[in-house]
Amino acid sequence: MTRRVPLVEKITKANDRLADTNRALLAGHRLASLNLMSSPGAGKTTLVEQTVAGLASSLRLGVVEGDMVTSLDAERAAAAGAKSVQINTGGSCHLDAGMVGDALGQLPLAELDLVIVENVGNLICPAAFDLGTACNVLVASVPEGDDKPFKYPTMYRGVDVMVINKIDLLPHVTFDMDHFRSGVEALNEGVTTFLMSCRTGEGVAAWLDWVREQVHQERGDD
Amino acid sequence: MTRRVPLVEKITKANDRLADTNRALLAGHRLASLNLMSSPGAGKTTLVEQTVAGLASSLRLGVVEGDMVTSLDAERAAAAGAKSVQINTGGSCHLDAGMVGDALGQLPLAELDLVIVENVGNLICPAAFDLGTACNVLVASVPEGDDKPFKYPTMYRGVDVMVINKIDLLPHVTFDMDHFRSGVEALNEGVTTFLMSCRTGEGVAAWLDWVREQVHQERGDD
Repeated sequence: MTRRVPLVEKITKANDRLADTNRALLAGHRLASLNLMSSPGAGKTTLVEQTVAGLASSLRLGVVEGDMVTSLDAERAAAAGAKSVQINTGGSCHLDAGMVGDALGQLPLAELDLVIVENVGNLICPAAFDLGTACNVLVASVPEGDDKPFKYPTMYRGVDVMVINKIDLLPHVTFDMDHFRSGVEALNEGVTTFLMSCRTGEGVAAWLDWVREQVHQERGDD
Repeated sequence: MTRRVPLVEKITKANDRLADTNRALLAGHRLASLNLMSSPGAGKTTLVEQTVAGLASSLRLGVVEGDMVTSLDAERAAAAGAKSVQINTGGSCHLDAGMVGDALGQLPLAELDLVIVENVGNLICPAAFDLGTACNVLVASVPEGDDKPFKYPTMYRGVDVMVINKIDLLPHVTFDMDHFRSGVEALNEGVTTFLMSCRTGEGVAAWLDWVREQVHQERGDD
């Protein structure tokens, strides 16, 4: 995102309208949906893999992967057992609602229970673009350091759920969990938080329970 | 950076002119200059601290810190012994040449040997904005994963030097160094590379030697 100029305001407004269209489409199919955001390399794709592997026996999953180039992540999601679509953004540093709308059109929405969108790795611009998904999830990771809520407040303020990933690295890095969480709390009080290591599997079960609950709520299951 | 539209082209051209102005200003003072870029949390600020601590007894250093908000990084650079200026970009996800020009105006350039610019943590947009600095340095970090050159090719292609940081974490993460380096080589053959752990100090001495060499070259020392 460049500095706020009239064109950028127009782009944001146009995006919001397309996000509303996506929201209505997903609601019409009673589809739960997540938008995963993070720095590059915080573990979004590994979280997608863990989620698909953990739920594919009971739920039907669609994955929209956003990257500048390559289809590496869509291939990983498909290998784990999801229907997947890759968006290549070219030079763009975030997904927008139009790109996601195009991708949703390529998924068999009537045959799915959950759509996971994996955004481009970036802690700034993705926070400014509503995609129409039900839940914004930030994947923070321990080796990034405990100062990130203070330095990227827009992202930390705007999310519904936070995953603190790579907790297996806590003994090997300088990371004060209390300092980190106090920074998060100041921006986003009481945000639902999962401590996790996608690599070792620690904490993944609680996340899967929460994702199942989102699907049941969206479907109106008892 | 949003999709390429005429306004974005205009912004890039205006930026290039301001970058030329910065380049001339730095050359006029025979000042070496580095632009450090990376993902959030790859270790740019710790590299600045190590560089200032290692060189401040023999060289006079200025640091320009770029962040969305806060002056945390400028305080760290100043505590390490540099003259420092903080740029707060607000919503912007990268530094541009105009911001850096303003910051250079706040530094006593005639009394410095080296200026280090620390960009905003982002692997995409900073690569598109020439700042007028002599050398673009990418700080990659091991926990980000070995697929990053493949996914963020513009950044990896455009840099003059690469630091591979956090090598102390290699035993604790999944990172195939050969795969990573083959991806880098395909984009940026023979790029000068430093293996480093800013946390343990491993590899820092070779980096400091290289930085000293840049200063001597710029000054025309024998």
